[in-house]
Amino acid sequence: MTNIAILGFGVVGGGVADLLTKNIDCTAKLGGDEINIKYILDLRDFPKSPFADRVIHDFNIIASDPEIDCVIEVMGGSHPAYEYTVASLKAGKSVITSNKEVVAKHGDEFLRIAKENGVCYRFEAAVGGGIPVISPIINCIGQNRITEIRGILNGTTNYILTKMFTYGKSFDESLKDAQAFGYAERNPDADVLGIDACRKITILTALATGKLLSTDKVHTEGIISIRSEDVKAAEKLGMQIKLLGRCIITDEGMHVLVAPFMIGADSPLSTVSGVYNAVEVIGKPLGNVMFYGQGAGAGATASAVVGDLMQIMRSGRNYAEPVWTRSDEGLLDISTLESKHYIAVCGADLTTVEAMLGAVQVIENGKELSFITDKLSEKQVASVIERLRASGAKLRSSIRLI
Amino acid sequence: MTNIAILGFGVVGGGVADLLTKNIDCTAKLGGDEINIKYILDLRDFPKSPFADRVIHDFNIIASDPEIDCVIEVMGGSHPAYEYTVASLKAGKSVITSNKEVVAKHGDEFLRIAKENGVCYRFEAAVGGGIPVISPIINCIGQNRITEIRGILNGTTNYILTKMFTYGKSFDESLKDAQAFGYAERNPDADVLGIDACRKITILTALATGKLLSTDKVHTEGIISIRSEDVKAAEKLGMQIKLLGRCIITDEGMHVLVAPFMIGADSPLSTVSGVYNAVEVIGKPLGNVMFYGQGAGAGATASAVVGDLMQIMRSGRNYAEPVWTRSDEGLLDISTLESKHYIAVCGADLTTVEAMLGAVQVIENGKELSFITDKLSEKQVASVIERLRASGAKLRSSIRLI
Repeated sequence: MTNIAILGFGVVGGGVADLLTKNIDCTAKLGGDEINIKYILDLRDFPKSPFADRVIHDFNIIASDPEIDCVIEVMGGSHPAYEYTVASLKAGKSVITSNKEVVAKHGDEFLRIAKENGVCYRFEAAVGGGIPVISPIINCIGQNRITEIRGILNGTTNYILTKMFTYGKSFDESLKDAQAFGYAERNPDADVLGIDACRKITILTALATGKLLSTDKVHTEGIISIRSEDVKAAEKLGMQIKLLGRCIITDEGMHVLVAPFMIGADSPLSTVSGVYNAVEVIGKPLGNVMFYGQGAGAGATASAVVGDLMQIMRSGRNYAEPVWTRSDEGLLDISTLESKHYIAVCGADLTTVEAMLGAVQVIENGKELSFITDKLSEKQVASVIERLRASGAKLRSSIRLI
Repeated sequence: MTNIAILGFGVVGGGVADLLTKNIDCTAKLGGDEINIKYILDLRDFPKSPFADRVIHDFNIIASDPEIDCVIEVMGGSHPAYEYTVASLKAGKSVITSNKEVVAKHGDEFLRIAKENGVCYRFEAAVGGGIPVISPIINCIGQNRITEIRGILNGTTNYILTKMFTYGKSFDESLKDAQAFGYAERNPDADVLGIDACRKITILTALATGKLLSTDKVHTEGIISIRSEDVKAAEKLGMQIKLLGRCIITDEGMHVLVAPFMIGADSPLSTVSGVYNAVEVIGKPLGNVMFYGQGAGAGATASAVVGDLMQIMRSGRNYAEPVWTRSDEGLLDISTLESKHYIAVCGADLTTVEAMLGAVQVIENGKELSFITDKLSEKQVASVIERLRASGAKLRSSIRLI
C-alpha cells in the first residue's frame, strides 16, 4: 500500500482523487501497488465529498506521519507550497507538483533536497498540463544535443489569439470571451503578460541546460498590444500569431524569451489552436519533435500528476533525476537575437523605410505601412524604430517572425 | 562500463554508433555509466569505418560473452532477428530494437522471455522513429482509459499523399518522386499497401489493451487507389487524405484498421505533412495528446534506440514493463465500424443516390458524382455500393471520414 497526501483540494486536487479512484485497477497495475489517499489538506471542509473523511487542516499531521510515501502539492502559489515541499522532502517523502511558479523559483533547491533525502521531486504537470513533456525530454530524448525548445505554453493566450484570428475580434473582446468561458482569470495578468509562459520556458530551459534562470532575467512580452490590424497582416501572409516561449541554445550561449511570434503555416506550432498547448524540441541527431495536447483542466493535469506517481512507485530514484543549478550564466542579452520582423508604422513612407532597410516585403501601404524586414538583430530593429520615430513616424507594432 | 553489441551496421546501426560516440558525455551522464560498443555484427566488413575493429560475423560471440549487457537489434526482418533476440534475452542480455516486423509478430514472447530472465525488451524506435511514443504511453499516460489511438505511422505514404495534395501529382508520379528521394523502396509494397502501418498499429493496440493481434486479422488498406479526383474533392471540403492506423476501444471491443481517411482541418493530424509521423492518443480523463516528429532516418531512429538504452541503464526492470498476450479476442469485425463516407461514382444520378441514402452532401456532380454520406456502418456502405452497382453505376472511390 502506497499512502499519499494531496495538498489542495481545488480543481486539480479533485481531479487527482477522482482519477485514482476511477482508474484504480490501471493505477495499481502500473504503479505495482495499491494507492491510498490518506489525507487531503485544505483550509475548507468538503462535507459532501466522498473524500470528506480524509480532509485535514494541519500540514504537520502529514509531515509527521511515517506512513505517507508521497505528497502531491497542487495548491499553487509560492507560499506555503515552498515550505510544505521542503518539509515533505526532508521528512523522506517524494513530492509531485503541478505548480509551475514554485518549480520555476525553487526547483533547483527541491531537486537537491530530494537527492539528499533519497526521494523524488517530479513536476510533469507544471508544463503543458496533461501532455507528456518533462518525462520524455529527460527519459527519451535527453541524449540529443538540444538546440531549441519552443512552445505554446499558455492556453489562455492561445485561446484569445485563436478568437482574434477566427472571428476577427479585438484583444479586449477575446479576453472577455475567455473570461466568460472560464479560460481566463478575472485578473488575467499572469497569462496575458506572459508571466505564466515565462515560468514554463524557465523550467524547460533548466531541463535542457541544467541552469535554472531567474525569471526576471528572461525577456518577457505578452499579447496585450496585438491589434486586429496585425492579425489581418498575418492572415495576408498565411501566418498565425502565437505567444511562444523560446530557448535557443548555441555555442555562444542561450537566448530565452517569451513573446508573440508570427509563424508560417509550415510550422507544426501554427496549427495549435484554442486552449491547446504544444512544445517543440529540436535536437541533434533527432530533428524536431512536438508534444501536443490540453495544457490545463482537471482531467489533463491529474493525468500528469498521477503519471509522475506511477513512475515514482515503479522506478523511484532509478531514474535520470535532473540536477539544476541556479544560474544566469550563458544567458545572452536579447539585443543579439536575430529575427525577421513585422513592423507597422503610421506616418512613414516606403521610400524612407527602404532608405533605412533596403527592399522590404510590403504587406499594407495605406493608412499604415506594414512590412517584413530581413533578419535583423534586436539592436538593429531598435535603431530602425528610433530612426522612424525621429522621422515623425509612429510605431504601431513590431512582431518577430519565426 | 556498459558493454553493448549492435546487430546490423546499416543506416540505423551506423546512426546508433555515431550518436553514442558524438554525445558520449550526455549518454554517460544520463545512463549513469560509460558505454562501450564492443561488437557490431554484420555480414559485411567496414574497413574504413572508425568501428572497423568491432565488426564481427558470428552472433555466438555476442551471445556467449558475459560482458555484453545489452544487444541492439537493428537488422530488420523476422529472421534471424527473432532467433538472435530470443538467444540474447535467454543469455541475460537486454534487447532494444527498431524492428517493427519482429515486435508485431513476436513481441509477446520477447516480453515474456525478458521477464523470465530479469532483463528488458524495448522497442521505442519501432513506432514513429525518433518520436517518443511507446515510453510516454506506458510511463506517462498509462493510467488513463485509452479510447483511441490513431496515427500517421508511415512516412513514405504520407510523403506521397503530401505530394499529391501540394503539387496535384498522381499517385504513380508521387511514388516515383518518393523513390527518387530515397523515401520509398524500389519495392514499395510494405509501405503503400499499408503493411508497415499495420505492424505499428498492432504494436500500439497491444500497448493500450495488452493484446497482440495477428496482423492478418487487422483490416488493412493502402493508398494505391487514391486518385487525383479524390484529392480535389478533399481539397474542396478543406480536408486532407491521410493513411491512418486506428485502434478504437469501446465497451463492446475494439476496431483496429489501417486505411486512408479524409481528415478535417481541425484535427491536428491533418497538418502532419511529408515524411513526418504523428500518433494521437485519446484517453480519459486526459483528453487527446499528440506526439509528432520524424518517423524515420538514421538520426531520429538512433535517438529512440539510445533513449531506450538510457532508460534500461537507469531503471532496468524498475519500470512498468508491458505484458502482452497473443490474442484476437475482442477484435470487432470491420462491418460494424461506423463512419461518414466519401463516395465517388460514375453513371449514377443524385436522385438514385438520395433515394437510397436520403440527402447527401454533394461535392461534384459532373463527369462523376461524389458525395459525403451520413454515419454508416461498413455493412451499410457495402450494401449501398452494391445497389449502386446493380443500378449500372461504377464505383470510383470510397474513403472514410474521421
